[in-house]
Amino acid sequence: MHAPLQNDSFLRACLRQPTAHTPVWLMRQAGRYLPEYRATRARAGSFMALATNPDFATEVTLQPLDRYALDAAILFSDILTVPDAMGLGLSFADGEGPRFAHPLRDETAVAKLEVPDMNKLRYVFDAVASIRKALNGRVPLIGFSGSPWTLACYMVEGAGSTDYRLVKTMLYSRPNLMHRMLEVNAAAVAQYLNAQIEAGAQAVMIFDSWGGVLADGAFQQFSLAYTRRVLEQLKREHAGQRIPQIVFTKGGGPWLEEIAAAQPDVVGLDWTVNLGAARARIGDQVALQGNIDPNVLFAGAAQIRAEVARTLASFGAATGHIFNLGHGISQHTPPENVAVLVDAVHELSTGLRARP
Amino acid sequence: MHAPLQNDSFLRACLRQPTAHTPVWLMRQAGRYLPEYRATRARAGSFMALATNPDFATEVTLQPLDRYALDAAILFSDILTVPDAMGLGLSFADGEGPRFAHPLRDETAVAKLEVPDMNKLRYVFDAVASIRKALNGRVPLIGFSGSPWTLACYMVEGAGSTDYRLVKTMLYSRPNLMHRMLEVNAAAVAQYLNAQIEAGAQAVMIFDSWGGVLADGAFQQFSLAYTRRVLEQLKREHAGQRIPQIVFTKGGGPWLEEIAAAQPDVVGLDWTVNLGAARARIGDQVALQGNIDPNVLFAGAAQIRAEVARTLASFGAATGHIFNLGHGISQHTPPENVAVLVDAVHELSTGLRARP
Repeated sequence: MHAPLQNDSFLRACLRQPTAHTPVWLMRQAGRYLPEYRATRARAGSFMALATNPDFATEVTLQPLDRYALDAAILFSDILTVPDAMGLGLSFADGEGPRFAHPLRDETAVAKLEVPDMNKLRYVFDAVASIRKALNGRVPLIGFSGSPWTLACYMVEGAGSTDYRLVKTMLYSRPNLMHRMLEVNAAAVAQYLNAQIEAGAQAVMIFDSWGGVLADGAFQQFSLAYTRRVLEQLKREHAGQRIPQIVFTKGGGPWLEEIAAAQPDVVGLDWTVNLGAARARIGDQVALQGNIDPNVLFAGAAQIRAEVARTLASFGAATGHIFNLGHGISQHTPPENVAVLVDAVHELSTGLRARP
Repeated sequence: MHAPLQNDSFLRACLRQPTAHTPVWLMRQAGRYLPEYRATRARAGSFMALATNPDFATEVTLQPLDRYALDAAILFSDILTVPDAMGLGLSFADGEGPRFAHPLRDETAVAKLEVPDMNKLRYVFDAVASIRKALNGRVPLIGFSGSPWTLACYMVEGAGSTDYRLVKTMLYSRPNLMHRMLEVNAAAVAQYLNAQIEAGAQAVMIFDSWGGVLADGAFQQFSLAYTRRVLEQLKREHAGQRIPQIVFTKGGGPWLEEIAAAQPDVVGLDWTVNLGAARARIGDQVALQGNIDPNVLFAGAAQIRAEVARTLASFGAATGHIFNLGHGISQHTPPENVAVLVDAVHELSTGLRARP
């Protein structure tokens, strides 16, 4: 049904199988730093029009693959599609972040929350199927979702936040409300990712973008416990293929052992964590994905190559490293610098693995 | 000359000496959450007018001590006084953060940078002397400065930032410029803190508020190396008294061992780090300060007490814990909740230490 996969280095690395070079992809690789993305975005008229139209989503997902030798594609979508389908009313004001018309702030609102009808998210699954077809086996396609906690942050705050005051106030003062919201979110995220897998996603990633804002203790109880619940419900195989699971907790360095113990196939790391130190802490239980500071892409070619070399060396010659940034690529990134990074990863990792 | 100190629990805990209870103070304890602070601020007319007037600074520094049984006072000032004295032109727009009229973005600007004449910061040292006198021995007075790296963030960005793109671009593409700026900053911060010590500060704290945004490797080279340089130049004693040194790196969890190896007396921790895990990593080389999430103060009294108990228990009954938040108190905090926290620390830590 699907064209055979021509480059399986990403999927192999997720499962800690040997690869000829370290595979590389970049969080938010389809995005505003690319002029062709901005052109498609202008044609679509708005971010939501872009994200909800499978043809546009397919077009922008493939754009970075035409420029760079990336080893994976990731569904172009937004992490807030699920709460939008729950009826919170997502919008994006120009130049600002996302905003919900109906944030959840009290007991009544939380009591009404339900797992949304997955048909409301059909456009996402259609995009997955369309992208998988358009990829035609070039590289695997990653599906994704926000984590239950990260979704809850937006659902309570109603927008981005610098201090997470409203959601943490609920967490500390009404923990039962927060647990109820997280239960619904976990069930919704599991259904959402399973539907992406059925539509053709060959790996899935959970973005716990705001797990790192939690206190020790609260992280385990309100973020990781629900990410784990999602992982447990996900299809491990589809159409005879293993579907690797990636968990990325921005700022999750303090809890690496516990995140690894939730048994995803891959743990994503931000740039504050040394890859070698991470391996020393959690051994070879999981593959690691990351972790260069996206701001390295503002330096010159020589510095970018040096940072790539340093990152590869910090992981070492073992199997199970997927090269990535430690967070999404900046919209201000010069596109030519991305080519320097991607090519350096391939070139230098081939050399690294050839060492005795 | 100075009145004898009536409550030395904070200074003793800094030096890991036994205390009857765990001392407590709160970062930004003199601030906008207090109506009396807002009244003084209104009389002063602007934040800068407040911060640069020793009488106002004295008044607001003492305000939280009149409400709460805090074990230390901290100079009311701003971390950006030093770059302002360097000629960068600090201002505070209402409702926004700080802004510099003349950020440092190129080689010429960095080359011109010099350690400022400390006379330009006389108002700070006058405030220290005035506060020390007004305290009249009630509790010790902490002086402070931003770290060389944290100052550099503001000096290059010109304001707060979410991605630190400009300062990191300089760091990665022109590391020598960044090192030159950090050298000047380190020399200035050392002079600034020593002058505060001479004026009466009984402990000093370096706020590396933005150390945690750096990548592993970059943190050691561009933040910690210069904090260490400051520490090495500080007076360890004044007027026959040891002057404890506190280093607080927000997001510094990954590098605790290295921060402790710089040998401050106290390491401040944010809420992502478990105090017991921190002690397991760095032993009893240093005292620890922290680390409750400031958002706990939005919960009810029972939850606040439970979180205080949990934090005290995570440190255990050893000497060398100074209770604090893991970051500055929120301007939205209900003042009565601060009393609950402070009293709970004293009450519950007395019990804790009495355990066999």
